Amino acid sequence: MTGTLTIAGLGPGDDALVTPEVTAALAAATDIVGYAPYVARVRPREGLTLHPSDNRVELQRAGEALRLASEGRQVVVVSSGDPGVFAMASAVFEALEDNPQWQSLPIRVLPGVTAMLAAAACAGAPLGHDFCAINLSDNLKPWTVIEKRLRLAAEADFAIAMYNPRSASRPEGFARALEILKEAGCGGRMAIFARAVSAPDERIETVRLCEARPDMADMRTLVIVGNSATRRVGRWVYAPRQVR
Amino acid sequence: MTGTLTIAGLGPGDDALVTPEVTAALAAATDIVGYAPYVARVRPREGLTLHPSDNRVELQRAGEALRLASEGRQVVVVSSGDPGVFAMASAVFEALEDNPQWQSLPIRVLPGVTAMLAAAACAGAPLGHDFCAINLSDNLKPWTVIEKRLRLAAEADFAIAMYNPRSASRPEGFARALEILKEAGCGGRMAIFARAVSAPDERIETVRLCEARPDMADMRTLVIVGNSATRRVGRWVYAPRQVR
Repeated sequence: MTGTLTIAGLGPGDDALVTPEVTAALAAATDIVGYAPYVARVRPREGLTLHPSDNRVELQRAGEALRLASEGRQVVVVSSGDPGVFAMASAVFEALEDNPQWQSLPIRVLPGVTAMLAAAACAGAPLGHDFCAINLSDNLKPWTVIEKRLRLAAEADFAIAMYNPRSASRPEGFARALEILKEAGCGGRMAIFARAVSAPDERIETVRLCEARPDMADMRTLVIVGNSATRRVGRWVYAPRQVR
Repeated sequence: MTGTLTIAGLGPGDDALVTPEVTAALAAATDIVGYAPYVARVRPREGLTLHPSDNRVELQRAGEALRLASEGRQVVVVSSGDPGVFAMASAVFEALEDNPQWQSLPIRVLPGVTAMLAAAACAGAPLGHDFCAINLSDNLKPWTVIEKRLRLAAEADFAIAMYNPRSASRPEGFARALEILKEAGCGGRMAIFARAVSAPDERIETVRLCEARPDMADMRTLVIVGNSATRRVGRWVYAPRQVR
């Protein structure tokens, strides 16, 4: 049997946000490859081998998935959210570039509901106007790039979704990001801290950016800073459609 | 019975990309409100009233949905893709602000797979690094704002997803957007034209931006311009994870 590689997004956490396309791919899989907490979201069954791995070994994991597919397995690489947004799809294509012998394998990418969309839906519609998404992790890019992008995003008056705002190993990055946005004149903007969206411990907090504290975010938090027109109506926060 | 208002995303087109959460909301609805082509995606059944409306009447449509909910109906407002991205959620909150008498209605926003995620998945992983989303329609914002955002997005080296690139009523906007990006030094970047993603007539074309022609896009096309590092491997286009 020909092996296949499917790169699938599990959505933010709730099974009700997993697309039927992804559910069908998981049902047809012989092997599930991914970061351990995401692999743990797939129900074990006979004939299915789970390959959980640690964080920060994305390229190795991608190579393993390609190798399994080349041996005839039906492999699904799982990511949280959408696999194309700060997740495994780029790592798989990078591994594919390093291993031309596997370039004829049938590969599919199955999109999912990425964290910022689920967070925005809980809060209202803060991404209803032009926006950007920035990964605050500086594992794979220098901090100077992050800083430049934050300043330009503020100048463009984009709403800004910040992924991976804060980890134990680099608690200072997010504090600096908040400072940069305040310096850029965004202190009065709405900031949404969406933690564990769609999970039982979900928590959504909205404050003015000038009142935001770095410890309001951890690695399970998605932060959305609204654009300059974003405002509240009742418990909701939304970006008006019109810009003058 | 208390009325409710649910703002739901139907995904890009294929039923396999509709979340179970949205499917359940549609099954519980008494009324479906939306732009006619999206309402047409909901299967008619006894007890369900369909309220299709024209384009460009978003605020009216949102007001009608709130009114129906206030009369005790179970209303679902449908959008293509994700309802929070250039779609109906912002219009509903705007109508809610104009009509404080309805602010106690139970409202939910159900996220969906927005067009850029589905387009990116077809092409590979062009949104695997920082990116932005810009609506090229100038119905609700001046062209000067669009132009400024395109220039700043190019300077930030974001991948750029362009929604609503081109319509019969304003064919010149997209041509100008391409010119601006070329002037900003993006001529060598990869440009993905993803038309009717996940529909039977889906078509994905990838060219260098300097080779892109305005007539490669219409209103059913989502255009993604990669960042400066985005490259091909086999038939795929992806953004490498690392930036130096």
